[in-house]
Amino acid sequence: MTPIRVGLLGLGTVGSGTVQVLKRNREEIARRAGREILITKATARNLAKPRDFDLDGIELVADAEQLVSDPNIDIVCELIGGDTTTKDLVLSAIAQGKHVVTANKALLAKHGTEIFAAALKARVIVAFEAAVAGGVPIIKTLREGLTANRIEWIAGIINGTSNYILSEMRSRGASFDTVLAEAQAKGYAEADPTFDIEGIDAAHKLTLLSAIAFGIPVQFDKAYTEGISKLTDKDIKYAEQLGYRIKLLGITRNTGHGIELRVHPTLIPAKRLIANVEGVMNAILVKGDAVGATLYYGRGAGSEATASAVVADLVDVTRMLTADPEHRVPHLAFQPDQLRDTPILPINEVETAYYLRLSAYDKPGVMADVTRVLADLDISIDAILQKEAEEGEDIVDVIILTHRAIEKRVDAAIARIEKLPTIAGKVVRVRLEELS
Amino acid sequence: MTPIRVGLLGLGTVGSGTVQVLKRNREEIARRAGREILITKATARNLAKPRDFDLDGIELVADAEQLVSDPNIDIVCELIGGDTTTKDLVLSAIAQGKHVVTANKALLAKHGTEIFAAALKARVIVAFEAAVAGGVPIIKTLREGLTANRIEWIAGIINGTSNYILSEMRSRGASFDTVLAEAQAKGYAEADPTFDIEGIDAAHKLTLLSAIAFGIPVQFDKAYTEGISKLTDKDIKYAEQLGYRIKLLGITRNTGHGIELRVHPTLIPAKRLIANVEGVMNAILVKGDAVGATLYYGRGAGSEATASAVVADLVDVTRMLTADPEHRVPHLAFQPDQLRDTPILPINEVETAYYLRLSAYDKPGVMADVTRVLADLDISIDAILQKEAEEGEDIVDVIILTHRAIEKRVDAAIARIEKLPTIAGKVVRVRLEELS
Repeated sequence: MTPIRVGLLGLGTVGSGTVQVLKRNREEIARRAGREILITKATARNLAKPRDFDLDGIELVADAEQLVSDPNIDIVCELIGGDTTTKDLVLSAIAQGKHVVTANKALLAKHGTEIFAAALKARVIVAFEAAVAGGVPIIKTLREGLTANRIEWIAGIINGTSNYILSEMRSRGASFDTVLAEAQAKGYAEADPTFDIEGIDAAHKLTLLSAIAFGIPVQFDKAYTEGISKLTDKDIKYAEQLGYRIKLLGITRNTGHGIELRVHPTLIPAKRLIANVEGVMNAILVKGDAVGATLYYGRGAGSEATASAVVADLVDVTRMLTADPEHRVPHLAFQPDQLRDTPILPINEVETAYYLRLSAYDKPGVMADVTRVLADLDISIDAILQKEAEEGEDIVDVIILTHRAIEKRVDAAIARIEKLPTIAGKVVRVRLEELS
Repeated sequence: MTPIRVGLLGLGTVGSGTVQVLKRNREEIARRAGREILITKATARNLAKPRDFDLDGIELVADAEQLVSDPNIDIVCELIGGDTTTKDLVLSAIAQGKHVVTANKALLAKHGTEIFAAALKARVIVAFEAAVAGGVPIIKTLREGLTANRIEWIAGIINGTSNYILSEMRSRGASFDTVLAEAQAKGYAEADPTFDIEGIDAAHKLTLLSAIAFGIPVQFDKAYTEGISKLTDKDIKYAEQLGYRIKLLGITRNTGHGIELRVHPTLIPAKRLIANVEGVMNAILVKGDAVGATLYYGRGAGSEATASAVVADLVDVTRMLTADPEHRVPHLAFQPDQLRDTPILPINEVETAYYLRLSAYDKPGVMADVTRVLADLDISIDAILQKEAEEGEDIVDVIILTHRAIEKRVDAAIARIEKLPTIAGKVVRVRLEELS
């Protein structure tokens, strides 16, 4: 089957990530989509700019309208951002029967009604998973995963820059201005940070989430927006003393007599999972009447995280254009003829770290014996915790955390340790994962 | 358009939840699906059993095979569980051209290959979102949301019963046997808890996640399974002293030379979000090469949480049978002609709680003045924190947390407080949400 041909508008942060992810995972993505997805054409602000990634097979053109009109393009991928030139380009692509994938929250929060109506009329898809929370598939979750529910409310950390600033202000007691300057130096905040720190970016995203949750048109102009630039480290400290954290939340709630749509700094109980989302991470808490509270967490921005959502949309469109409707999405994600017989490893070939608890006689030489066994089997030690013997007991607990090792070597070590004369009884073993 | 007619096999916990969610949210679900979804027929183990929910319009029948063969049923919903009678029923439904929605992880983890092949051949859908993590749409996320990624690993808390037991053992220092007995009394654990506490249920679910993540057939027989029944409160305590929590994790990882597929108690750093998932909640951490680490959290079991996933699958099938393929999923989740003009509330009509910081002169009568203003405006106080005046300062910080109140009343209170002679300068106001 011929590949799906994608025209990319914009080779900035998200555009370059999209090129790289599609190239690197080309084979795996085709196994899922049922067809190859190729970027064949792209526009960029500066065509001559040297780029540190492979653009092989991609024709660079200066004229965006020419790309949109190219009959050899099946999907137009709009990654320019902003709502000035993009609106005309997207409407033009739709009018010419192209499917559109976009990451543009500002465009859709303001002009979604017009764009969606045009797409319906032209019978093309406009997909926008990347517009909210980067690679976290929150649009799909709300539109398809939670359709059984009356959504009660959504509360989200949907701007990484402001969450980074608030996290740093809290953990170090630093002032807003200090942390903002650092964030700018690190590239976490723009030179003009207004959109992020004043809640405008979050309000764009919240407008989309609210419309999807409650079945209302997008109405960015009705959103209440208050940023974090006036927050002091003093208030963050007092909030903490009272058991709260301050987060910039986008909140939308169906009250029964109207819908709340608001972005502002918010105190939330420190014990909530969402209160512990730190740094540039995003998290969205959705309360449905059937499912209860659910939370979705991940990187909300960045080149490849956002590209993850862009490419997922490209796969969605490709599957729709390719498969029998009943099997648009394969049961096991990959096309049925693309399953592999990669072996499942037996547990003794798995590599992980270990917690070992030994019952040892409280006398000299125990540690030397045990560490010798571990060293002989090339198992290295991360930490040792030796407990005091209890009154009248001659046996003490020794806890050892190992670095990663193949399980069969750990099994062998345990067998040898249990035979040591300084050890009483069985070794307790629990596996340990850093999950980082 | 005529309604979609669903035949329900099983009226137990999940079946009754499905009936209730579909009835309660009937109108909203139809606005999303583009068509009404009605359960017209159901089987139950005991037809005569009195039930405390509305079965109006549902014909109860004794013979499951008769329901499956009924030409007036479009979708068969299998909520019996287990893999004894269900396999034949599901294959029979498929052979008769019915779409199938099921919550049955044991059935699919063992016989998925045969069932999916039959569905492909018969061109019907077999949907199983409810099989893993209750209402959390993790199947959809992996199959559709993260298709851009090479999945590196998945680590999940996917059995609520065992997570409840471990959470209680840690927080109270109680023994496994004590907490298991309590969990059984509360209905969180079955009379025979083997499937939950020995990791078998988690291994069924992990088998499905692993196949979807890595493009391999389901192979439950290759899963390594170790439960929590031998864990002692002592090891939980030692782990905590070393900065770790013990969770029963399902872990699957693509090592490059084979796939790990294992369920066992695991130490994980206490600072990880997933280490703080307590009680019966589920959470799944997915690491993709493009998106990074993402986490999905919610109730993994229970009547309506699982029904949420069952109904989402029913909506998916209904949309596929109803809409233009390009607009199977509406842009804003609800069908375009079903958007409502529910008003967006102005911020001063929003109700929330507040953190107020006042700068007060350090003299008698301040608290009386302030609390009088709040009482006059019917704003009740949740907590007050008064700081000591700093050396040489005559102004102190007073922090007040209010209960929920309409914002315009709080605005009025702030205006009056700022005019009090005992108050210096502006009141700082931050909104507060419990998010519970």
